[in-house]
Amino acid sequence: MEKISFMLDSVWVIIASVLVIFMQAGFALLEAGSTRMKNAGHIAGKQILSFAISTLVFWAFGFAITFGEGNQWFGTSGWFLKEGSETTFDSLSWAHVPLSIKFLFQLAFAAVSLAIAWGGFAERAKLSVYFIFGTLFTIFIYPVVGHWVWGGGWLAQIGMQDFAGSTVVHLQGAIAGFIATLLLGPRIGKFNQDRTPNLIPGHNQVYTVLGGIILWVGWFGFNAGSTMSTTDGFFGYVALTTHLAAAAGALAALITAKIMTGKADVSAMVNGVLAALVAITAASAFVEPWAAIVIGAVAGSFTFWTSIYFERKGIDDPIYAFSVHGISGVIGTISTGFFASPRLVEITKIGKAGLFYGGGFHQLWVQIIGVLGAAVYVTIVSFLILGVLKLTVGLRVTPEQEISGLDISEHGAYGYPEHLELLNHHVNKIKIS
Amino acid sequence: MEKISFMLDSVWVIIASVLVIFMQAGFALLEAGSTRMKNAGHIAGKQILSFAISTLVFWAFGFAITFGEGNQWFGTSGWFLKEGSETTFDSLSWAHVPLSIKFLFQLAFAAVSLAIAWGGFAERAKLSVYFIFGTLFTIFIYPVVGHWVWGGGWLAQIGMQDFAGSTVVHLQGAIAGFIATLLLGPRIGKFNQDRTPNLIPGHNQVYTVLGGIILWVGWFGFNAGSTMSTTDGFFGYVALTTHLAAAAGALAALITAKIMTGKADVSAMVNGVLAALVAITAASAFVEPWAAIVIGAVAGSFTFWTSIYFERKGIDDPIYAFSVHGISGVIGTISTGFFASPRLVEITKIGKAGLFYGGGFHQLWVQIIGVLGAAVYVTIVSFLILGVLKLTVGLRVTPEQEISGLDISEHGAYGYPEHLELLNHHVNKIKIS
Amino acid sequence: MEKISFMLDSVWVIIASVLVIFMQAGFALLEAGSTRMKNAGHIAGKQILSFAISTLVFWAFGFAITFGEGNQWFGTSGWFLKEGSETTFDSLSWAHVPLSIKFLFQLAFAAVSLAIAWGGFAERAKLSVYFIFGTLFTIFIYPVVGHWVWGGGWLAQIGMQDFAGSTVVHLQGAIAGFIATLLLGPRIGKFNQDRTPNLIPGHNQVYTVLGGIILWVGWFGFNAGSTMSTTDGFFGYVALTTHLAAAAGALAALITAKIMTGKADVSAMVNGVLAALVAITAASAFVEPWAAIVIGAVAGSFTFWTSIYFERKGIDDPIYAFSVHGISGVIGTISTGFFASPRLVEITKIGKAGLFYGGGFHQLWVQIIGVLGAAVYVTIVSFLILGVLKLTVGLRVTPEQEISGLDISEHGAYGYPEHLELLNHHVNKIKIS
Repeated sequence: MEKISFMLDSVWVIIASVLVIFMQAGFALLEAGSTRMKNAGHIAGKQILSFAISTLVFWAFGFAITFGEGNQWFGTSGWFLKEGSETTFDSLSWAHVPLSIKFLFQLAFAAVSLAIAWGGFAERAKLSVYFIFGTLFTIFIYPVVGHWVWGGGWLAQIGMQDFAGSTVVHLQGAIAGFIATLLLGPRIGKFNQDRTPNLIPGHNQVYTVLGGIILWVGWFGFNAGSTMSTTDGFFGYVALTTHLAAAAGALAALITAKIMTGKADVSAMVNGVLAALVAITAASAFVEPWAAIVIGAVAGSFTFWTSIYFERKGIDDPIYAFSVHGISGVIGTISTGFFASPRLVEITKIGKAGLFYGGGFHQLWVQIIGVLGAAVYVTIVSFLILGVLKLTVGLRVTPEQEISGLDISEHGAYGYPEHLELLNHHVNKIKIS
Repeated sequence: MEKISFMLDSVWVIIASVLVIFMQAGFALLEAGSTRMKNAGHIAGKQILSFAISTLVFWAFGFAITFGEGNQWFGTSGWFLKEGSETTFDSLSWAHVPLSIKFLFQLAFAAVSLAIAWGGFAERAKLSVYFIFGTLFTIFIYPVVGHWVWGGGWLAQIGMQDFAGSTVVHLQGAIAGFIATLLLGPRIGKFNQDRTPNLIPGHNQVYTVLGGIILWVGWFGFNAGSTMSTTDGFFGYVALTTHLAAAAGALAALITAKIMTGKADVSAMVNGVLAALVAITAASAFVEPWAAIVIGAVAGSFTFWTSIYFERKGIDDPIYAFSVHGISGVIGTISTGFFASPRLVEITKIGKAGLFYGGGFHQLWVQIIGVLGAAVYVTIVSFLILGVLKLTVGLRVTPEQEISGLDISEHGAYGYPEHLELLNHHVNKIKIS
Repeated sequence: MEKISFMLDSVWVIIASVLVIFMQAGFALLEAGSTRMKNAGHIAGKQILSFAISTLVFWAFGFAITFGEGNQWFGTSGWFLKEGSETTFDSLSWAHVPLSIKFLFQLAFAAVSLAIAWGGFAERAKLSVYFIFGTLFTIFIYPVVGHWVWGGGWLAQIGMQDFAGSTVVHLQGAIAGFIATLLLGPRIGKFNQDRTPNLIPGHNQVYTVLGGIILWVGWFGFNAGSTMSTTDGFFGYVALTTHLAAAAGALAALITAKIMTGKADVSAMVNGVLAALVAITAASAFVEPWAAIVIGAVAGSFTFWTSIYFERKGIDDPIYAFSVHGISGVIGTISTGFFASPRLVEITKIGKAGLFYGGGFHQLWVQIIGVLGAAVYVTIVSFLILGVLKLTVGLRVTPEQEISGLDISEHGAYGYPEHLELLNHHVNKIKIS
């Protein structure tokens, strides 16, 4: 009986892993669709590069640092999934699935966090920086905060509620990306002399929408899979709150955009879905359906406001990764301090009920400490790594390379050769005629 | 033991839900690929809008009307999935999965039905109409017929066989879309003065094909998931008949197109797959594999013929939604009246065997009543809602907006800004030179 | 208890089937993205055609030849999944899932093999050839070698290790495609008078990348699903080795491309992922994680080298299918002769340990025999079929058709009508102005 239950949990978690891994396609499409044709092959392609780096580095080091036994700050055992790993990891109470499947599921999360970070690098960073920063992020940044919250570290011990990683996955990636955004500076042509921004629209909204839907689908694995168990069908409840939040985020963002700019912007709606999903990631196991809708709607609206805010402040975050994953990561993590319901806290056995349920300020305070702790750490380490890179190998391609596009300058081939060739062909014919 | 079985069913149904939810991406691609560049962002984007509306409205009202206890015509309990809902829904014999998962699965079906309806609105309806009609469809149309067939209503009581919704999901959506097609009128440029039709080809067949494959994949959740159970592995049988029908539909449509027009049209083949899947949706649990192939092939051929027929009659159904989902929905629902096999009727415990198995005309008659009942109801209510909308807010954008495209006129941004910009850029360079 | 275990295995295998079926979308995108705009609708569309043919032919004949009882060379019972099939197939020890689900899973593999073969036909073969060769491949080629290895035939009896089909699926498809490549000859414009090759780049790297990610995701079903069981969670282990190999293949191919040509080519990286996945397909259940990384890296590098090699030899394999699936299929199959670990051989109960684990040359020799046996058979039969087709109906479209593109010449409609129309529109406006 117990063995069957173990096998059933294994099936559920490997399926959830596959869904989260499929999110790599979502990020590739979302980011490629939201940027320009001349960089499309590069942006889609680096998703595979990023995933491959994550895989090997998280296998060798990251998983051990996150989940290995060690101290309050980081794990120190289980390198290469080997040294004493079966016993090390099986002792964790939160999962009764084989180590291979635990690893795949957790790896998928680490890879999402790195994918988020890349958003801030888009359309101007050197390819070599992706290799170096991707490796270091997966050793020194993600696993450390991961250990704090999910590996039995100091934030776990004070009862921080971050069910599937609004802070661990999204906020970390978003902050790393934001530091890159600041150190790289805006893309050529983004701001005018008088510091007013120009719109640099993405080249393909169908990709953006498709990427958004794939991410939405993948999030069922992300959140509902984070139960890592099928017991009592609680994973269904998590899927429900996740889904309701996403729907509310879509409508809130679309309506906000329409009210504020008169345009029912499609990209803004997609970002609203994602912002809501980011926010409900921490909260999905702790809040009631109505609260999920509120959290999703708030995140969806905020992501539109903050996107505009940062742009006006002269910050060029090409796909608004910091608004979508950073601001919403904070909203989601803090939200359980207000909305965590006693009934669900009892089921999850993490932390206490929130302010609106008579739990007082305790959990709210824990959540704020968690966000601040993670934010300070990621900011410092990202700044150190990227600062050193900027002073040594350099972060940014040359202006000529940026203008000609990263497809040709970093990879030696256009992503859409014929769109350009066709044009030139016709143009030449005309010239002749 | 029973508990493990309950958890296993839950895993299967949530996976099926995710597959059906992924069909939203299929519809976005199919419809965007089958229409024009100037509307691509709008068409893909409204899929997310549609899904978000479905989610919140079906959560608040639709699920209660469909599955809540009530009368023969509609359910009256379980609003917001709350009021007495656990007991209300757990008393249904057809599912032993948590309410959250029942809801997600059923919501995914409601959202597909709405997605089908939008096909008839394509390339000329106002964005506001999508908000209003989407909401009303998910309250007053879909759940009512859903209750009749799946919620213990009058069609359930006479033993109508509609396993996964050829009538409930597809025919309803298709009729609503068809009423919109009629009330909106044809797109500008579709018909000449002499009423002969012009071809308005879709802008991207790769999207169309990708959308078709995603829908095919999603249909494994749609039909095989409708067992809502893993008992005896019967869901595998349903998957088998579904798949065989789809393959037969593809070949039948391609061959029909080749014979009738001399062209092995790719879009026609994709529509043949979908038509076959729509038809087998009702029948998949009731018919033998050979019959599934016959049903798929008939639906695949018919969808090509009827597409041409409606076009010749002056009706502009841009993506042939009525042929694919309406005509095939009828074919599929009626088909069990002929093909339902005694062995399978015994397993499903719904209705009786069909005409070809010595069951006489009984089941055929039941199926026809079901189709007529649903068709009459949806026609009347859709006509009322859309008629009032036409007279008040108006259904259609202005001719100027339609010509410039809904991306720019309804959303304020092109879906493919660079394809146009690039062109203009080159064009200007030439002008100067 | 046993019954629940049976149902759980059924759920796992049907999900794996759906993942492998989804690979059809991956092939459609990969191949369409890697070829030219004028053929995009055709190339994507024929994927559906190919899948439909596979389905019906494998249902009628292929499954019986592969898995039916018979002799060492082919099965002779179970036609149309009917004749005595339940008992015939249930007697196989390797699977305790319903026949319907066994069939769907195995069909998905046969369809992948055919999809691989089509790579060698790309951009110049007649549509009718796809019908005829697809049918004959699924009767006379794939099922025969499938029977040898997986159906209890002579290669199974000598203990050949081909867990998920590096030889059965990939090598067979690749050799059939290679014979087509040779008999069709190079595309117009591929080679200059002096036999130097020209680059014919694919038209859309975003599709290529998306296709690559979908295939990567699908491979979890392909390899981990080939356990056809959830017992002891071993499917998780197979997923782990598969995933590590893919990551290693991506990096190895990208670095190889960068070193050899100075370009970090995106398509080469995607092919590296696929080559690694092909290679690990045979080995995933037999090798340790470190060995999986080595196998993936070797395959990833080799696929780049051999792509260039064949091109220099005057062979035009448009999407390098023979390098990716053929050479890597051989590498993967042979690899267990070196790397098969005693621990894993004990679990899988197939063959013996490899050379590096003190197993001597025995298993290596078995693997080489398996590769040679399959290669010789597929070469001869493919050559016979395609040779006869070349002499009778002809394999290749006319030069005019090839230049105008297969979308318009074989299907009567452009895949991207507006990209061309838009251009012409602007061009005409300029001419007038």
